[in-house]
This record gives sequence, C-alpha cells and structure tokens, in this order.
Amino acid sequence: MSKTPLKIAIAGLGTVGGGTVELLHDQAETLAARAGRPLTLVGAAALIKPDTAALAGVPFFTDARAMAKECDYDVLVELIGGASGIALEVVRTALERGRSVVTANKAMIAHHGIELARLAEKTGANIGFEASVGGGIPIIKSLREGLSGNHVTKVMGILNGTCNYILTTMRDQGRDFADVLAEAQKLGYAEADPTFDIDGIDTAHKLAILASLAFAMPINLDGVACEGIRHVSALDIGYADELGYRIKLLGVAAVTEAGIEARVYPAMVPLSFPLAHVSGPFNAIVTEGDFVGRTVLEGRGAGARPTASAVVADLMDLACGRVMPAFGVAVDTLEVRPAAPAGAHRSAYYIRLMVKDEPGVFADIAAALRDEKVSMEQIIQRGRAPNQTVPVVMTVHETDEASMLRAVDRLNALASIAEQPRLIRIENL
Amino acid sequence: MSKTPLKIAIAGLGTVGGGTVELLHDQAETLAARAGRPLTLVGAAALIKPDTAALAGVPFFTDARAMAKECDYDVLVELIGGASGIALEVVRTALERGRSVVTANKAMIAHHGIELARLAEKTGANIGFEASVGGGIPIIKSLREGLSGNHVTKVMGILNGTCNYILTTMRDQGRDFADVLAEAQKLGYAEADPTFDIDGIDTAHKLAILASLAFAMPINLDGVACEGIRHVSALDIGYADELGYRIKLLGVAAVTEAGIEARVYPAMVPLSFPLAHVSGPFNAIVTEGDFVGRTVLEGRGAGARPTASAVVADLMDLACGRVMPAFGVAVDTLEVRPAAPAGAHRSAYYIRLMVKDEPGVFADIAAALRDEKVSMEQIIQRGRAPNQTVPVVMTVHETDEASMLRAVDRLNALASIAEQPRLIRIENL
Repeated sequence: MSKTPLKIAIAGLGTVGGGTVELLHDQAETLAARAGRPLTLVGAAALIKPDTAALAGVPFFTDARAMAKECDYDVLVELIGGASGIALEVVRTALERGRSVVTANKAMIAHHGIELARLAEKTGANIGFEASVGGGIPIIKSLREGLSGNHVTKVMGILNGTCNYILTTMRDQGRDFADVLAEAQKLGYAEADPTFDIDGIDTAHKLAILASLAFAMPINLDGVACEGIRHVSALDIGYADELGYRIKLLGVAAVTEAGIEARVYPAMVPLSFPLAHVSGPFNAIVTEGDFVGRTVLEGRGAGARPTASAVVADLMDLACGRVMPAFGVAVDTLEVRPAAPAGAHRSAYYIRLMVKDEPGVFADIAAALRDEKVSMEQIIQRGRAPNQTVPVVMTVHETDEASMLRAVDRLNALASIAEQPRLIRIENL
Repeated sequence: MSKTPLKIAIAGLGTVGGGTVELLHDQAETLAARAGRPLTLVGAAALIKPDTAALAGVPFFTDARAMAKECDYDVLVELIGGASGIALEVVRTALERGRSVVTANKAMIAHHGIELARLAEKTGANIGFEASVGGGIPIIKSLREGLSGNHVTKVMGILNGTCNYILTTMRDQGRDFADVLAEAQKLGYAEADPTFDIDGIDTAHKLAILASLAFAMPINLDGVACEGIRHVSALDIGYADELGYRIKLLGVAAVTEAGIEARVYPAMVPLSFPLAHVSGPFNAIVTEGDFVGRTVLEGRGAGARPTASAVVADLMDLACGRVMPAFGVAVDTLEVRPAAPAGAHRSAYYIRLMVKDEPGVFADIAAALRDEKVSMEQIIQRGRAPNQTVPVVMTVHETDEASMLRAVDRLNALASIAEQPRLIRIENL
C-alpha cells in the first residue's frame, strides 16, 4: 500500500452525504485493499458540522464553494442536490480545476450533464453519476460497460421509490392516493412538496439520463413526456388486480421507427413481467439489447446506505483508474436523434368511465370507440343501477395515442358520462 | 481513431464462439467508437472453419494450441469449454506469453481460476470471465466493481437455464421430470449427457466463482454441497403451488456465524421473492451487501448472443484499459475462510411421504418428528384411502439439517412409509 491516497472532498452531509462518510469510514480498510490505495477524506462541507467520529480530523467548510476552490482534492463528491445553484457551482469549479466529480444529483445531470461532461473532457477530469439513477443498483455501469457490446433498443423501469411505495401501499391496504401520500409524508418517505416525485419529474430526470447512455444521444429532458400518479385511484388499482395487472409508474424510452420515444406514465403491468413484482421502495430497470436480450436490475432506489454504495462505486473506479467518458463516448460524438411525434405511440389501454346508467348509454360508448377505430377487448360493469352513476371499465386493443385521445374526447362529450374518463396504458410486454 | 487495434484470437467456434464472431463483425463500428480503437480478429481456431463472412480474411487454425503459441494477439478468447484439456492449455499458453484471456468457461475457472489468476499477475496479463456466470448478465462486473463499497454477506441465484426451463415446463404443463428432460434434449436445451446441469454441478461451478468474488476468498469448489433436481416430481411442484411457492434450483452462498455456507439444492421459493418469478431459460442472481441491501440481476443465462454480449464486455474493458485483478484483489490477499460444518444449516422444510393409510400412522409420523425436536407447521392429506398408499405433505418450522435428516431416517424406518421421504428446503427470505 505505498500508493498515494485518493483525496476526497465531500459537499453536502445530509442523508446521502452522511451515508457516504459512514461507508468511507466503516469500510476504509476493505476499500484500500480493493483499490490498492486509501480513499481519504480531505474536506467536508455543510452548513452545520455533524458530530461523527467519521469526520474527526477532516477539514470542515461551511461554504462548499470555498472548499471546491481551495481544498486540494482529487475528486469532489457533490451531494447538495438541486439542478443548479451551489451544487452546479461547486461541480463546475472542481471540473475547471481538472479535478473529478462524483454526484448523486439526477436533476443537475439531467439539466446540465452534457455541458459538465464537455467541461470534464476539456480539463481531463472525470464525472461519475452512478448514484443519480436507481440508488444502489449498478445500472449506469451496466449500461456503459457491461452491455457495451449491444445496441440498446429499450430501457424502462420503476425509477421513483416514493411513487412505488405509494402505489404498493394503496394496493396492499386498499387505500386512496391522498391518504397514503399524507402518511408517506409523515413517515419521511415523501417530501413536504411531493411534486417532483408524484408528478413524475424525478422519474423523467432519471429516464433522460438512462436514454442518453442507452442510445448514445445527448440528454433530452424536454423530449420526455411526463404524467404522474395523482389520478390513480384505489378503484383503478382494484380493477387492475382483477384484470391481472399491477399499476406502476414507469419511465420508458425506446428506439422506434418513428424516432425516440421517452415517456413517464402510470401503466398496467402484467404479472408475467418482472416489474409487476417490484414493490415498496425498490426500483428496477429493464434493458433490451440486440445481443443480450432482456436484463433486469433491481434494488433499493434511495436511502442513505444504498445511495452511498453507488457513490463509493464511482470513487473506487476513480481510485483504480477505471475511467471513461461520462456518457460512454466523447460528448461531441453523441448523436442527436429525432423524437417520435406526439400521438404516434401505440398502446393498449384501460379506460374507466363513471356512467349515469341510462337507456342507450352503452350504444353511445361503443359508437364513440368505433368512430375512432378503437377496438374494445373487454368490458366490466357490475350489475345495473338505473339512473345512478356507476363505474364502467373497458380495455381496448393496441391503438395509436391520437385515436385514443379523440375517442376519449367523444366519450367525455356524452351527457351520460359523469366525470373525466380515466385512461391508463397497458404494457403488453 | 488513431489508436492501435485490440488484437483478438478466438479459440472455439461453437455456439458462443459463433455468437462472439458475429457480434464483433456486426457491431464493429460501434465497438470501435466506444473503445476508441478497433477490436480486430487476428486468429480463429476450430476443427472445421465455418463459412461466414465475419471470418473472411482472418487467419484460421485447426489447432488452437498452435494459435495460442504462434499468433500475435493481445487477448485470447477461450470458448472451447471443459475444465482442463485444450482449453486450459491454450489459456496457460496465452497467460505465460503475457497476453490476456477472456473466457466463458465456468468449469475451468471453478477448478483452475486461482492458479490462472496468479499466473496472470506474474506475467502482467488479465483474465476476464464475465461470460462464465449468468450468460449476458453483468454479474461479475457488478460484484467486483459496482458493489465494491460493500461487504457482501450473501449471494444466491438461479444459475442454470436448463434446470429452470425443466422446472418451469414441469409446472406450466403438469408434466414429470423424465418426460420434460427428454423433450429438452430433443430441442437442444439439454445435453445428451445432462448430468452437469441436472445434478447441479454446473450451478456449483458458478456458485463457487460468485462466492469467491463476493467474499474475497479463494475458489472452493469442494466446499459446495450439491444436490440436483432429478428427484423433483410433478407431485411436489403441485404441492408447492398450493402452498404458495415455486420450486427452483438455487445456488446459495452465505457468510454465517458457523462459517461460509455454499450449497446447491432445489428449494421452495415464496412468491413474494423475486426469484420465484424467474422462468424458462432466464437466470437471476440476488446479492446482499451491508450498504446496498438486496440487489437482483436477471437475464438470459445462456445462448450464443447473450453469452457473446458478456464476452465482448470483457474485451471492451481490455480495449479501454479498464483492468483489475481477476478476483478483485491480488490472489495472495484472498482469505481462506472456514466452511460451516455439515448439518449446521438451518432451514424450514417441505416433506412428502408416501404412506400406507393404516390406523396409527399419523401418531408414528408425529412421534418421529417430536423425537428430533422438529416442529410441524402444516400438513396436507387429501381424504383417506384405507390400506392404499397416499401422499402426505408436511411443512416444518426452521430446524437444523442434522435433526431434519435424523427425523427422516426415523420416518423411513416406519413400516407404513412406502418410499424414501422427499425433502425440499423452504427459503424463508
């Protein structure tokens, strides 16, 4: 062990920062043996210095920007969070100094990853962001290295543990969305402002990163169509069960003839598909490659210790000199690929209508679908309740999204339809 | 692209060799862009030269040993197979010449991996064996790099696609073992001599490799207790369904207080556990690390194209200079770890007895269990059929293996027990 240490400065000592410091301290001997050199903390920055033995003797900064500028580190670990602001500032500073960066910050990578990778190339630094997608799951390494012999045609997954926890709990306990969300917030599983999670924005960030790696194209966050889980009701989850599906919030990116499709949406996933069984806070990512076929990687998608595992994996790569361009190839060789036009996406659908049970209503519904050439597969209505509002659930065969939306408009215009029809895509995999 | 090519010689052009040649040919441009240098075939060896455009202009050898000795390559890809013989000979030759090796040969790595890794260290060569476990699943890279911040405490999986195909088909079609095996042989999914697969030897090879990587210890194939699937009957699979389990052939290695446990056996896997849903030719590996928690990697466990994907992943690592010791650390720092003593393993069990339905038989069965302090959980017997032989199925709470085996001896000695009791472990995960 004569080699020089890898000098690490860590910015942000919250949940993930705390876990990372703990890991570096607890496993110091093992990491040094595996890397052939010690991984040494030479700086830590946060607003308040935590009282932990793991930081004893480590120079402490209350200003991460000062640490980024002045401290002599090989790698800056950015765990402050946020798409820009101080996080982006310290990362730029490190890269401009030719020092490498490891980050768990999916928002920053989704918004600024390409610019940062270009800066790193210019100064000879490296940037690792394994922890930005899928918590402890080594998905970035797998896409970039393990599957590097493949043309990846599809990458999809359950990428947000908060949504998966909410959907799993709704199903297990038969409770409704608002109720479970409130509980998740009380337990600390969901943020006070849950928008990023439940509206699918966090999933969109992660999907944009995965799609860039999978398809060797620049990150295109604007190209991700995004729909969250606010409208998923206990009623729909019950019908999903009955029809042999689980409702999951998916991020799906695929190479299609019409172009690149990248979407976040709640979907009915058949029980025969591995993602149907990924529950609670777990994440999972399915990749399809032309040689490897389908692979599935599952693990804890968040939390101090799993995310620290991913941060340290990147540090170990740097310590061992296993480095490569952030997106697999030089930024300027990433190829802009056209997005598939809106409405072209084809899918089967689940539709739930709240219907005033009046004579002739079924004929009107059937006509609305027929007029848009949407082909009904099955229909569920429990008994009759004349002049009352009852749920009517249908599944339809694969159709293009534009036709489906027009059919929904027609349905919504019917006098007997009491509220906005609910539409959920069915993944037939 | 001014860099020198990675010169590749490939020994063995069977299923995996053919797939690898195809991949290197079809994706040549992509691989070169990703590696920053071309991957070039400079030699191929097999008994008969295949007629494929992918080998046009590539020097051909009918003697792999001559190619290993004479050809000027950077890396020899060994896809001949077999624990020793020509495969081992050409690998040794390459390493002695200071040239690297990539192989899919689990038998050779399980038997000679440590010796070969030591030889590679001596001559400054590298050895990659991603393709030896789990087909296209990047499990070796994940264990060695992606989870390198963790102490791994358990690694287990479905590691043999032939057995998983047989067990899945037996369940789906309600057919018996011999029948499905014969069909699998006809279809080419099972070898003419299926011993390696169905007796668990192939799984043991793979488990020994995984355990070495996971626990940083030398490969210990002799330490793997091995039981195959010959005795799994359609009857047992039916009862498993009824009890909420799937029967899977597992390889399981764990760090326990009593030492390292490494075992291959058919097990009842609860439906709530991801491995229960891995079907047909798919493999999956579960890893438990102290920081990352549980991760699951699933994919195609065999076949030309998935295995070629793994072979090429190793080649890409070599082309990019991403190299490290074969087992994560230098061979001499791997630590021999004591095996847990036989009989100490604790598990819940399923027991199927074929019982002559006579007065007093249940009292005898209950006494046999009680005398070995084995605690019954549930019992299934369909109706009564006086003086006929009927199946009686029990599950028992967790007990140590030695007690369970003594109880089975007692049961087997009863006059009313018509055939050897069938014992299947229950994984309570």
